[in-house]
Amino acid sequence: MDGGGGETLTEREREKAAPAVILAARRRRRVRPEGLSRKVFLSVPPPSLADNRPDRERLVDGLGSPAPEVPLPALRECSRILRQGDWQVTATLGWFGDRWRLTRLEPGCTVDRHLGLAVDLGTTTVVAYLVDMVSGRVVDTAAGYNAQTGLGEDILTRIQAGSEEKGLAGLREAALATLDGLVHTLAQRQGFAAQDLTAAVVAGNTAMIHFLLGLDPARICLAPYIPVAARPGFYAAGELGLRINPAAPVCFVPGVGSYVGGDIVAGVLASGMHRRTEISLFVDIGTNGEMVLGNRDWLVACAGAAGPALEGGVAASGMRAEAGAIERVTIDPKSGRVRYRTIGGGRPRGLCGSGLVDAMAELLLAGIIDRSGRFRDGRASFVLVPGGESATGEDIAITQTDLNNLLRTKGAVNAALEYLLESVGLPMAAIERFYAAGAFGQYLPLESAVTIGLYPDLERRRMVRLGNSSGEGARLVLLSRRKKREAEEIAGKITYFELNASDVFMRKFVGSRFLPHTDLSLFPSVRAKFEKRGLTPV
Amino acid sequence: MDGGGGETLTEREREKAAPAVILAARRRRRVRPEGLSRKVFLSVPPPSLADNRPDRERLVDGLGSPAPEVPLPALRECSRILRQGDWQVTATLGWFGDRWRLTRLEPGCTVDRHLGLAVDLGTTTVVAYLVDMVSGRVVDTAAGYNAQTGLGEDILTRIQAGSEEKGLAGLREAALATLDGLVHTLAQRQGFAAQDLTAAVVAGNTAMIHFLLGLDPARICLAPYIPVAARPGFYAAGELGLRINPAAPVCFVPGVGSYVGGDIVAGVLASGMHRRTEISLFVDIGTNGEMVLGNRDWLVACAGAAGPALEGGVAASGMRAEAGAIERVTIDPKSGRVRYRTIGGGRPRGLCGSGLVDAMAELLLAGIIDRSGRFRDGRASFVLVPGGESATGEDIAITQTDLNNLLRTKGAVNAALEYLLESVGLPMAAIERFYAAGAFGQYLPLESAVTIGLYPDLERRRMVRLGNSSGEGARLVLLSRRKKREAEEIAGKITYFELNASDVFMRKFVGSRFLPHTDLSLFPSVRAKFEKRGLTPV
Repeated sequence: MDGGGGETLTEREREKAAPAVILAARRRRRVRPEGLSRKVFLSVPPPSLADNRPDRERLVDGLGSPAPEVPLPALRECSRILRQGDWQVTATLGWFGDRWRLTRLEPGCTVDRHLGLAVDLGTTTVVAYLVDMVSGRVVDTAAGYNAQTGLGEDILTRIQAGSEEKGLAGLREAALATLDGLVHTLAQRQGFAAQDLTAAVVAGNTAMIHFLLGLDPARICLAPYIPVAARPGFYAAGELGLRINPAAPVCFVPGVGSYVGGDIVAGVLASGMHRRTEISLFVDIGTNGEMVLGNRDWLVACAGAAGPALEGGVAASGMRAEAGAIERVTIDPKSGRVRYRTIGGGRPRGLCGSGLVDAMAELLLAGIIDRSGRFRDGRASFVLVPGGESATGEDIAITQTDLNNLLRTKGAVNAALEYLLESVGLPMAAIERFYAAGAFGQYLPLESAVTIGLYPDLERRRMVRLGNSSGEGARLVLLSRRKKREAEEIAGKITYFELNASDVFMRKFVGSRFLPHTDLSLFPSVRAKFEKRGLTPV
Repeated sequence: MDGGGGETLTEREREKAAPAVILAARRRRRVRPEGLSRKVFLSVPPPSLADNRPDRERLVDGLGSPAPEVPLPALRECSRILRQGDWQVTATLGWFGDRWRLTRLEPGCTVDRHLGLAVDLGTTTVVAYLVDMVSGRVVDTAAGYNAQTGLGEDILTRIQAGSEEKGLAGLREAALATLDGLVHTLAQRQGFAAQDLTAAVVAGNTAMIHFLLGLDPARICLAPYIPVAARPGFYAAGELGLRINPAAPVCFVPGVGSYVGGDIVAGVLASGMHRRTEISLFVDIGTNGEMVLGNRDWLVACAGAAGPALEGGVAASGMRAEAGAIERVTIDPKSGRVRYRTIGGGRPRGLCGSGLVDAMAELLLAGIIDRSGRFRDGRASFVLVPGGESATGEDIAITQTDLNNLLRTKGAVNAALEYLLESVGLPMAAIERFYAAGAFGQYLPLESAVTIGLYPDLERRRMVRLGNSSGEGARLVLLSRRKKREAEEIAGKITYFELNASDVFMRKFVGSRFLPHTDLSLFPSVRAKFEKRGLTPV
C-alpha cells in the first residue's frame, strides 16, 4: 500500500501487470520502430584549418535537416565526446512534437542498445514497461502500488487534497517516487542506467496526469468539469522531475477531458477499434467506469463513477485481488453447494471484484436471487464460506447490500451504454465487437459478467480482453510517431457525453436495474441459461 | 574593476556606453517590432457544459496556429490567471528559432508594457540596454566592468582558466553576476521586475559566449581554432541561469568562428554594409582587432591580437580611459609646445589609447619622429606633461618603446587589411566606406588615426563611427526576427581568413611598419599634411 518498487505486489498483482496480452497485441500489429527516440551513428569529419566549422555545426550538419535542437548539457559535452570517440559517435534524438532534440551523445556506435519506458499510471497500480526501441519488444515489466494511495485511496479524495498547493506537491512527489522506484527496479534487474532511458510515454487518467504535472485538479470534479489540460504535450524528463535521461522527451497519451483521459485513448488505440468499419464497444470498469462506442468514422464516450462495488473493501467480505481473495465461485443449483477458487490457492480471506460478479451470477442462475437482485427467501446474506473454513475464522458472505451495490454499478454501465447508443441512434444489436480493458476486464469472468448484464451479450469470439491496454497504448506511442498522431486523432474524434448532466441518463439508470436487463430479449444467451435451468424470469 | 553594477564606472565609461549612436541608428532604420517576444491580448470564451475544452486548449486556440509550446510553469498557473482576469488575459510569447513558447500569462491587458534586454557582453565592459519592445526605443542603459576581469584581465588568461572545469564555472558565474547586477540596476531605476524582461539578445565574442554558456574554450586558441559553438541558438533564461523571466528566450547573435564572434556580426548588421552595393570596411580595434570587408554580395574577415598598445597600462604612462587620462594632444610644430585635454578636465594622470594615437600623429606632423616612428634626435622619450603639472608628480611621457608598440599594432591592422584586399583581388582604393566600431572606434581621433595609417584615407564623410555596434546589433535582433535572419546570413556569408596561419600576412606585416604606410600614395590627405608642413617623407 505504501508503494514504491514492485516488491510490495502480490503474485496476483504481478500477474495482472504481466504483458501477456500486450505481447499478443504486438504480434498482431508489429510496429516499425520510428519512435519518440532514435539513435544515429555518425562519422564526423575531423576539423582542420580548411574545415574549421565549430564542433556543434560539425555534429549537427551530420544529423541532417531539419537540424535538431542542441540543449545546453549536450552542447557542453559534445567537444569532449566527439574527440573521445575519435569522431565516431552515436547521437540520440528525442521527438518533442514538432522537432528533434539531441538528448544524448555517446562515443562509438551504440545503436543496438536503445531503451524507452512506457507507463500505465493507474490510480491504484502503476506499471512500467521497459521497451527495446530497436525491436519494439517489452524487455521487462515492473509494477507497484501508486504511492499516492497513502494520500487518498480514491481519486476524489486526492483531487480534494491536490486542490491545495501542499497537497498537490505531495501527490506529485508520490507519483514521481513511484515511477522512480519502478525505473530503479527495472534498471537493477536489466543492468542499465536511468540515463539510458531516452524517451517515455505515460498513459493515465486526467486526474493522474494533473497530479504528476503539478496541475490544479480542483475543477475536474466541479461543473462544467474543465481540466487544466487533457493533451499536455511533451516535456523533458528533467523538467518533470522524472529521473530518467533528463533531456528525454516524456509524452502523455492525449485525453479527451476530465473523465475520459489518456488511459482510455491509449486503450482505444491498442484495441484498433478506431480503424475498423465494425462498431465496437470499449469498456474499462474500475472505480471509474469509462466506455467508448464507435468505429473508424465516429467515436462517442461517457464516464462515471461506476461505484466502488467492484473494489475490494466495500462489500461486507470484500478485499483487494490479493492472495486469499475468492476470485471464482460456482453454486450448484440443486444442492446449493458453493465451490470457489482463491488467488494463490490458500484459505479464503474474502471476496474480490471478480468473485463478487461470479457469485451474483451464480446466485441468479441457482434461483437464490431473482432478477431484481433480491434474495427470493428474504434473507439478509448468503454465506459462501463458513468461518470454520476461512483464514480469518469469520464467515465470508455476500449480503443484500452487496448485491444492491453491484446492481447499481451494473445499472450505471447499462444506462451509460444505452445513453450512448441512443445518442447515435443505434440499437444494442449494432455492437459487433466488445473490448474489456483494464485489470477488471482481464480477470472478470466473462460468462458471469454477461449473465448479470454488466457486459453485452455478444458471440463470445467477438468479445476481447485487452489486458493492460493503457500500457500497451503507451508502448505504441513510444515506438511510433504515427501511433502518436493516431492517438491525437482518437482524442480529437471522441465526442464526450457528460452523464452527470443528463436527465435521460438518470431515467435509464433507474430503468436498468434488473438482471441482466429490464429487456431480457437483449440477452439471448442469458435467457437460454434461464430456460435451461427452468427459471422463470420475473 | 570588480564589476557588477554600473556604479564603478567613470563618467567617461558611462559616456562610452551611452546609446547616442544607437539612437541615431534607430532613427535611420526604424524597426517594426516583430521581435523575439510578442504580447497578445486575448478574450477567451468562458467554459460551459457546451464548451468544455480544457483551459490549456481554450487558451492555445485563442493564440492561433501554429500553437505555441506551453511550458510547465505557464501550464501550472494558466487556470488561475484565466479566472483571475475574468477570461481577459495577455499572453507573452517568446520566439525560440522555429516556434513560439508561452513565456508569461497575465490577467487583463498589459500589451503596452513589454520589455526586452539587449546586451553587449564585452571582455572588459558589459553594457545592458533596456528596450521597449513596443516602440523599439532604448529606455535605459546600464554598463559595468565584466566581473571576469578578476579571474583574468585578458582573454587568453581567461581561456586558460576556463579550460578547467572549476575555472569555467567561475567565469560563467562572473558573467552571470555581472548581467544580474546590470539588470538589477535597470530594474531599480525603471521600476520593473526581472520577470518583466521576456526576451534577451546577447552579442559577444566567441570566448565570452563560451564562458557564459559554460562551454570548454580550450580549443579556441589552439590550431585549427575550433570553438564548441559559434551559433549556439536559443536557450531559456532559466536554463542559462540568467535571472530575467526564466521562460524568456535568450538569443546569441551568431558568430563566424573562434575569432570573429557575434559582436562583429552584430556590428556588421548595425552598419548595414551587408545590404549595400558599395564596398565597406568595418574595423573594431581593441585588445583583439577584427576587420570585415565586403558588400551585399560577399564578406571577408580576419582577426588577430591587435597588440595591447592601445590598452591602458601598457605604455609607460598608459592608463585606462578614466578620469585624468589624456585623450587629446596637439603639438605645436614650431615651439614644440604640447596642449592636451584630460577626461573629466582635471590634472593629467596618464595617457589613454586615443591620447596615444593623437600624440604619435602630432609627433609625426611636428617632425619630432620620422615615418619609421623613431625620434629623429635619437632621444628615448618625449615628455608630454612634466611632473610638476601632473596629478601624480611624475612626468607623463611617450617612449620609443611605446611608439614601437603602437607601430606594431598599426602595422598589424594594415597587413590584415592588405591581406584581405589581396584575397579578393581589390586595391585599397576600392574601399568606399569605413566603419569604426567599438569604444576605441568611438573615441579615437579620426584625423590622427588616418595620419598614422591606422585607418584608411577616405573622404571623411564616408567614415562612420558606429559606437557600440555590438549592442545595437543585439537590439536589432531583439526587435526583429528578420534582423535575426539577416545576422545568420551575415555569419554564414563571411569568409574568415586565418591570419596566424598565413605567411603572406607575416610578409605584409613586416612591410607595413611605416607611418602612415610604406606606400604614401595610399594616404593622399596625409601626404598633403606633410607637404603643407614642409616635412620630407623618409
